[in-house]
Amino acid sequence: MTKPATATATLTTFIDMLAAAGLQNHSMLCVGLDPEPAKFPTPLKGDASKIYDFCAAIVDATADLVMAFKPQIAYFAAHRAEEQLERLIAHIKRTAPQVPVILDAKRGDIGATSEQYAIEAFERYGADAVTLSPFMGFDSVAPYLKYHGKGAFLLCRTSNPGGGDLQNQRLASVDGTPLLYEYIAQLAQGPWNLNGQLGLVVGATYPAEIERVRALAPTLPLLIPGVGAQGGDAQATVKAGWRPGAPIVVNSSRAILYASSGDDFAAAARREALRTRDLLETARL
Amino acid sequence: MTKPATATATLTTFIDMLAAAGLQNHSMLCVGLDPEPAKFPTPLKGDASKIYDFCAAIVDATADLVMAFKPQIAYFAAHRAEEQLERLIAHIKRTAPQVPVILDAKRGDIGATSEQYAIEAFERYGADAVTLSPFMGFDSVAPYLKYHGKGAFLLCRTSNPGGGDLQNQRLASVDGTPLLYEYIAQLAQGPWNLNGQLGLVVGATYPAEIERVRALAPTLPLLIPGVGAQGGDAQATVKAGWRPGAPIVVNSSRAILYASSGDDFAAAARREALRTRDLLETARL
Repeated sequence: MTKPATATATLTTFIDMLAAAGLQNHSMLCVGLDPEPAKFPTPLKGDASKIYDFCAAIVDATADLVMAFKPQIAYFAAHRAEEQLERLIAHIKRTAPQVPVILDAKRGDIGATSEQYAIEAFERYGADAVTLSPFMGFDSVAPYLKYHGKGAFLLCRTSNPGGGDLQNQRLASVDGTPLLYEYIAQLAQGPWNLNGQLGLVVGATYPAEIERVRALAPTLPLLIPGVGAQGGDAQATVKAGWRPGAPIVVNSSRAILYASSGDDFAAAARREALRTRDLLETARL
Repeated sequence: MTKPATATATLTTFIDMLAAAGLQNHSMLCVGLDPEPAKFPTPLKGDASKIYDFCAAIVDATADLVMAFKPQIAYFAAHRAEEQLERLIAHIKRTAPQVPVILDAKRGDIGATSEQYAIEAFERYGADAVTLSPFMGFDSVAPYLKYHGKGAFLLCRTSNPGGGDLQNQRLASVDGTPLLYEYIAQLAQGPWNLNGQLGLVVGATYPAEIERVRALAPTLPLLIPGVGAQGGDAQATVKAGWRPGAPIVVNSSRAILYASSGDDFAAAARREALRTRDLLETARL
């Protein structure tokens, strides 16, 4: 009488999807979808109406190599391409339903407005997870947690040039005087993580900081951008952040998307994704 | 041979526009455009395709009473209404060109991505200013400053329930151990304010904190949400934040937008806007 569980039926949460895609594709790689028409190969070059076509070709070429896809919404919004983003995520859901989609939006607002952004991310676009800024506090994050099973990665320590301007400020009022980013890691591992939906964004540039975040947040998934074009060392990243049962999702965007400016761009993206995936996997041994 | 300067020709910066609109309309009031179809009056109620119509009616009813309009992009994005937001801002530019438009988006990302969000705010939507999160540091703000004359309000101290979770943390490493929000006010008044384009967002709930921000940022425009439905006291807000030559932009959204649920909604919005404007003006005396 019992129906055999299917992969689709059992994967009800983002965390489960992430683990299953990682296992199936032997991968910790996330391909970031940051479409820049000026960098597209001919004949798509400069044509914002081809954002969907370009990104879908990248998805098709890499879907069996990745743990997740991460479209960055700014690159769509700048080109009035929200409808193309909707179609792109629907394409991923149709052709690679096992791969979770992280909408990189870095939203952060008061509760009532966060509810609107949560509708945008989870209902309109159908993303499985979203990136958020913790700057406005817990009630700016809470509306996303009402979507049970969806994931939410909080910005913690970003490795852009100004990432430390605020995040590395030392707090006087917290035991052990941790830095601001360390305090955020504690909040996300502890009191803010009501239903196990939270993760953290930690840049790849400073492995020592990834290691510190992992110590403070021993079970959270870490989304780690900055490998590839941004220069983070893939192997140091894995050693610092990955632990059994504590996943890392290592993002590379430009190095994969724009691996070739010729009409072999999808094949070149696949080669670069494969190379990065294997580099990450080797570091896990 | 010299052509007489027109108002339009001389108002090249957001700061100038803000001052001129304030002077012309005797107003420090900003009407926040946070459209929620479920709250629209019949017969618009529940119809997301009427977001433009509803907001344009509010604009037409209040344009001679305000210092600025502030559309909140999340309320449009949740309803796939970006095109209606474009039309709404174009409507303001056409019918009330003297009133600046602050796009409330609270963006914050690495430099390359911030460039895309700046295109979204200033080129796509044609906003005069934008709200930003400072959490990712100076390079997350810098791309907006390349648009000379445009304004950028950084989140500083927000008065939502969790606003103090991070913003009120005391920093050990800064002289005088200011709180995080105080440090942000110092950065915005000083080293980050390359071309005089920055302002700060400070919630209305805690006048003592507005006063503290004003002391640390004596010349910056302060965008102060939370008056009206959110309960901030209008007069205490003015006394704490306004100084001659140091403008405040006091936002009210729901109390004005939904002053009536009947077909007199625009007239009711005008009455409520007039009442709030006069309350603010009286406090300046």
